[in-house]
Amino acid sequence: MAEFDWIAKYFAPLATRAGAAGLVDDVAEVSGKASIVTVDALVEGVHFLGDDPIDTVARKLVRVNVSDLIAKGARPDEALLTLGWPKAREEAELAAFAKAFGEELGVWGVSLIGGDTVASPDGVFLSLTMTGIAATARAPIRRSGARVGDEIWLTGEKIGASALGLADRRAGDVSEASAIYQVPVIPDLEMADVIAAHATASMDVSDGVLADLQKLLAAGGCGGNLALDQVGVYRAGAAEATLGEVLAACVGGDDYQCLFTAPGSATRAIEAAGRSVRVVGQVDAEAGLRLFWHGEPVPLPETTGFEHS
Amino acid sequence: MAEFDWIAKYFAPLATRAGAAGLVDDVAEVSGKASIVTVDALVEGVHFLGDDPIDTVARKLVRVNVSDLIAKGARPDEALLTLGWPKAREEAELAAFAKAFGEELGVWGVSLIGGDTVASPDGVFLSLTMTGIAATARAPIRRSGARVGDEIWLTGEKIGASALGLADRRAGDVSEASAIYQVPVIPDLEMADVIAAHATASMDVSDGVLADLQKLLAAGGCGGNLALDQVGVYRAGAAEATLGEVLAACVGGDDYQCLFTAPGSATRAIEAAGRSVRVVGQVDAEAGLRLFWHGEPVPLPETTGFEHS
Repeated sequence: MAEFDWIAKYFAPLATRAGAAGLVDDVAEVSGKASIVTVDALVEGVHFLGDDPIDTVARKLVRVNVSDLIAKGARPDEALLTLGWPKAREEAELAAFAKAFGEELGVWGVSLIGGDTVASPDGVFLSLTMTGIAATARAPIRRSGARVGDEIWLTGEKIGASALGLADRRAGDVSEASAIYQVPVIPDLEMADVIAAHATASMDVSDGVLADLQKLLAAGGCGGNLALDQVGVYRAGAAEATLGEVLAACVGGDDYQCLFTAPGSATRAIEAAGRSVRVVGQVDAEAGLRLFWHGEPVPLPETTGFEHS
Repeated sequence: MAEFDWIAKYFAPLATRAGAAGLVDDVAEVSGKASIVTVDALVEGVHFLGDDPIDTVARKLVRVNVSDLIAKGARPDEALLTLGWPKAREEAELAAFAKAFGEELGVWGVSLIGGDTVASPDGVFLSLTMTGIAATARAPIRRSGARVGDEIWLTGEKIGASALGLADRRAGDVSEASAIYQVPVIPDLEMADVIAAHATASMDVSDGVLADLQKLLAAGGCGGNLALDQVGVYRAGAAEATLGEVLAACVGGDDYQCLFTAPGSATRAIEAAGRSVRVVGQVDAEAGLRLFWHGEPVPLPETTGFEHS
């Protein structure tokens, strides 16, 4: 099936804004409301597995971009999709991809305005460009603004499910965690407003909490401590997570929650917003990251994060 | 080499605008001047060959996007790069890619503001998102505005070199044409101003002059004629091109020149702009495309264009 037909059949119905011109043209007009832009790619065999259901891949693609924008205090606006599609994948799979992609864009209030579809000699590869509207004039909140004395906040109830889910998937198992690996849980859009209003530094957690917190503190020229017992960790059973489980969760990747810093004066307002977010540490002046478990120091693991490679 | 190091070493030096934040963050701030956006992908084995020098691939990537914007009456502004890079490609190749990419962005006045680098299990794949500033309030010029009586214009001195060059490359030959296949000749930026001022419909020629002219006329709900003898065609020798050579050039792809329509009242102004562009036909009310060779009708070939597949 030719590129032109694919676009008309599966993607044009998703592109309802005037600026998209029904995807019949080579360029789109942007809404003019967005001042922020991000791009994220997902590659078969790297960011998802060849036998992951293609609808979950579509949802993950949207979410990893939305997560970037929320972490910067922006609400997503418009998107352009680059789709590299192997001939060996059936048209029904393309239809399933487009359906889930459209639904997921709808969940987050994003309009498809353009893209490019190309043949792929091997696996599926995807790149999504997404624009965002700054929730306040302070946004985008950069990585580099952490100040000594700030609280360190982490969104989400439980991290680490994706890493466990990837292990399950590689073992051929299907689990609640593997479903989260396939379609990550990300903060809701209101978190963008909270971050835009209060955060001094912010980023999304994609390479592991420890590694990403190290990056954030280093970017701000400061250091900090992390109370591992305050980090909500995903586990299959009901018992409380052990230190080993918490550390494993904090070096696992693909969580796509937000890690941000804010002054103590903002704590009440952040809590009052009623979102899923909690204080997990404090910024201090001594370079580096120090870990604690119920008040006792814990050595930093040699590997603090996850590299997609 | 980790993604973070690649970006810092090879791409951050290209990202000099404040909005790029040195590529250390996950989002960029756009200039606010651009209202138009396009995205184009190049895939190893589909749009370029595995042994094409990687610096030519970088230049082609920039040019195919710039060509889209010029055809719509826009000057390019900012870009975001998605780079899928196989482990098997050496770092020296990445350095060569980044160097040529930066130089080529500079040629067209484009600033790199963001991107994503990911591992590729197989070949190189590239997706470039590029924003454009409308050269007049009429832009973007859509495909669909052609009116009966308009002249049909084609930019560039000679088309068809890329198609010949691809054949040369596949035969293992190096030629002037193969160099044009690798790095297409596109219109200069001033052509964006001409198109934005005068064109009623416009698109870039990437799938062949005949196929793309068919699309443009159909989008406008009209038809037209093309004087094949007025189309400048690339050929290695000095002799004038035969009808067969002209037809071959007009169904070949990868030219990236602009095809546009404009009313006769604009002819003098378009010529006065002094760009490389000429009238090759006229729009009429009868659906379909009719070909002529020195005034004599010529049947339309069964295949009018080129599909990258």
